[in-house]
Amino acid sequence: MGRTFRFTLRATDGTARRGEFETPHGVVQTPAFMPVGTQGAVKAALHSDVAAAGAAIILGNTYHLFLRPGDELIARRGGLHRFIGWDGPLLTDSGGFQVFSLAAHRVITEQGAEFQSHLDGSRHQFTPERTVDIQARLGSDIAMAFDECLAFPATRQAAAASMQRSVRWAARCRARLEVLRAAPPPDVTVSNPRQAQFGIVQGGVFLDLRRESADATVASGFDGYAIGGLSVGEPIDVMYTIVAETAGRLPRDRPRYLMGVGTPEDLVECVARGIDMFDCVMPTRNARNGQLFTSQGRINIKNARYAEDDGPLDPICSCYTCRRHSRAYLRHLYLAGEMTAGALNTLHNLTFYLDTMGRIREAIQLGTFDSFRQEFLRSVSRLSHDS
Amino acid sequence: MGRTFRFTLRATDGTARRGEFETPHGVVQTPAFMPVGTQGAVKAALHSDVAAAGAAIILGNTYHLFLRPGDELIARRGGLHRFIGWDGPLLTDSGGFQVFSLAAHRVITEQGAEFQSHLDGSRHQFTPERTVDIQARLGSDIAMAFDECLAFPATRQAAAASMQRSVRWAARCRARLEVLRAAPPPDVTVSNPRQAQFGIVQGGVFLDLRRESADATVASGFDGYAIGGLSVGEPIDVMYTIVAETAGRLPRDRPRYLMGVGTPEDLVECVARGIDMFDCVMPTRNARNGQLFTSQGRINIKNARYAEDDGPLDPICSCYTCRRHSRAYLRHLYLAGEMTAGALNTLHNLTFYLDTMGRIREAIQLGTFDSFRQEFLRSVSRLSHDS
Repeated sequence: MGRTFRFTLRATDGTARRGEFETPHGVVQTPAFMPVGTQGAVKAALHSDVAAAGAAIILGNTYHLFLRPGDELIARRGGLHRFIGWDGPLLTDSGGFQVFSLAAHRVITEQGAEFQSHLDGSRHQFTPERTVDIQARLGSDIAMAFDECLAFPATRQAAAASMQRSVRWAARCRARLEVLRAAPPPDVTVSNPRQAQFGIVQGGVFLDLRRESADATVASGFDGYAIGGLSVGEPIDVMYTIVAETAGRLPRDRPRYLMGVGTPEDLVECVARGIDMFDCVMPTRNARNGQLFTSQGRINIKNARYAEDDGPLDPICSCYTCRRHSRAYLRHLYLAGEMTAGALNTLHNLTFYLDTMGRIREAIQLGTFDSFRQEFLRSVSRLSHDS
Repeated sequence: MGRTFRFTLRATDGTARRGEFETPHGVVQTPAFMPVGTQGAVKAALHSDVAAAGAAIILGNTYHLFLRPGDELIARRGGLHRFIGWDGPLLTDSGGFQVFSLAAHRVITEQGAEFQSHLDGSRHQFTPERTVDIQARLGSDIAMAFDECLAFPATRQAAAASMQRSVRWAARCRARLEVLRAAPPPDVTVSNPRQAQFGIVQGGVFLDLRRESADATVASGFDGYAIGGLSVGEPIDVMYTIVAETAGRLPRDRPRYLMGVGTPEDLVECVARGIDMFDCVMPTRNARNGQLFTSQGRINIKNARYAEDDGPLDPICSCYTCRRHSRAYLRHLYLAGEMTAGALNTLHNLTFYLDTMGRIREAIQLGTFDSFRQEFLRSVSRLSHDS
C-alpha cells in the first residue's frame, strides 16, 4: 500500500515556497493548482485531458458525492479513485462551503448542520464526525475538516463566534480521524487508510481572528492547513493581506492551501505570500462561458473581432486546442452551441493555469520568482478590456 | 496538391463489397461509416477522439454551415478543412434534407427552394447551382447534389414528380460543377479543386421509380451515388428491398452511399446488399441520451441495474471509455448531468460503429461475411429489452 502523507520543502525565494507532497496515490509538486471535479469529474474534460494539461491532483466534493451517488455506494466500489477511474492524488472538500451556499433551510448548531438537498429537498445532517466518516468512505488522499462558512460581510462578533466554532469542529474532525485510524466502527469503510487531513483557518477579514484561528487549528495537529472564507467579496488587497498574515502564522513544514482562489494573478500573488496549493472553478467555468486566459490577457471568444482570426488562442500555448484550432473556429463552436466548445476551451484554460504553476515552480527553483511575477502581471493584464 | 477522387473495388463476398476511395485529403477504406459533424464538429467529440475511434472521414452540412458561420467566411479561412482543423477527408451534404426538415416557410419551385433560417428567420434561396457553389467554397472532398426530399408517406404520383425534379436538379448540379472546374466565376472561391460530387437516387418506396432515378442520375456521370429518402418511416423490410434493388442498379465502379442509415444491424444488412458508405447521427445522438451500443446489445445507462456495475460498457471494446470507466461511473455522470457523460458515451458509440465497420471489411476480405453477419445479428439483439 502507498505512502503516508509527507510534505517536503525544496526551495524558497522570498516568501514563495517550492516543495512537494507525497500521497498514497503519488507525488504532487508545489505550488500546485487542483482542477475542481465536484461530482467526480472535471467539467467538460476527460481525465486523460486533465492529466495531459498537467494536473497532478484533482478535487472532489463531499456534499455533492454524499447526495449523489452516495458515499456508501462509492465505498462499495472501492473508493472514489476506483469509482471515477482516476488513480492519481485526490482531495475532497468537506462540504462545508456547499452546505452554506447550495443547500436549503440549513440550521446550524454546535452539533453540526442540518440542511435540505438542493437536488430533491431531502433532509440531512452533517456533523464534523459525519463528514470525516463520509470522506473516509470516499478515500480521498486529503480530506478537509468541516468548517462553518461565514457570509460576507460579517461583524467582528459574528466572525469570531463562527471561527471559534470552526476551531472546535476542527478538533472534533481530528479526533474522529484518530478513531477511524485506530479502530474504525463497522459502519465506516475506510477506503484509504493513509488519508491525510487538513484543517481550515477562518476568521473573516479580521487579522487577529485569523491569527487566533491559525494557532488554534494548528494545535489540533493536521497534515496541512487551508485558508478558507476568502474571495467571497472582500477587496483584493484585504485578501492578499490576510493570506500573507495567515500563511506566515502556519507551520513551515506543512502545505498551505488557499481555498477557492482564484485568477491567474491571484495565484502568483498568493504564491508570493507563501501559499502552496490552490483550487478554483474559474478556469473550467470561465471556459464554458467562452472566457479564455492567455499569456497576453483574457479573451472573450464570443467577441466579433475573432470571427476571422486564424490564430490560436495563445501563440505560446502548446495545448491541443492551441495546436489544432483557430480563434475563428472556437468562436463558431461557441456561437453554434457545440459541446466541444466547452471541452476545447476547458482544455486550454486548464493548461494555462497548470503551465502557470509550472513556471512559478521553475522560477522559485531558479530564484527568479520576483522578476517572473512582475513580467507575468504585466503580460496578463493586456487585452483585459476584452472580457 | 492531392489526388483526384477514385474508387477501387478490392474484394466482394456475395453482394458485399470491400474497396477504398481516394480523396485529396486521404484514402478511405470501404465499407465506411462517416460520423456526422453537422456544424463542423462531431457533437461531444474532439477531432482527435473521432480519429482515435477509427473515423477516416466525417460529414459537414451545407445548410448549417451556410447559415453559420457562412460559406464565404469559411472560404476566406482556406476552406472547411483548415477552418475546422480536420485534415482528413470530408463530405458535405447538400442541405436538401435540412431545408425540408428544419427550415421554415419553404417554397419549392423548379428553380430551387426558398426558405427561412431556423436560427433567425432570415430568408434564403438554395438552387442546385447555389448549393454547388457553397460546397465549392467549403471545399469538401465529396459534395452532394441538391435533391428534393419527399415526405413519407407519399403517393406514387408525388414520389415520381419529386424524383424527376431531383434528377433534373442533379443534372444542373453536375453542369455547375463542370463550370466551376473549367472557369470558376470570380465570386466563387473553389477551396478544393479536386472535389468529387455524388448524385442522389430518390423515388420513395416505389421500386420502379428508384430504378428510373438510378438510371437517370447515373446518366449525369457522378463520382459516386447515394440513396436518399430512406429510413424516414417506411418498414425495415421495404427499406432493405429498395437498398438491394437500387444498389444493384448502380455502376459497380462507383461507391454507393446510403444516407442517414442507421442502426448497427442496418449497417451489416445494407453492406450485404452492396452499400459502401453510411452516415447517421444515431451513435452520437444516442450517446448523449445515454443509449449505448455494445457487442451484447443495447444499454440504457440510466437504468438502475447499472448503479453498482463495476464492469465496462462492453467487455470486448478497447475504447478509452471502456478501458477506463465502469458502467456505475457512467451512470453517475449521466444522472449528474456532467458534460463528460456525453463525451465518454460518444467515444464509445463511435468506436462501436467504426469497429463494426472494421470487422465488416475484414469479413468481406476473408470471404466470411455471411457468418459474421449471422453472428453479429445474434449478439447485438441481446439485452435489447434494456433500451
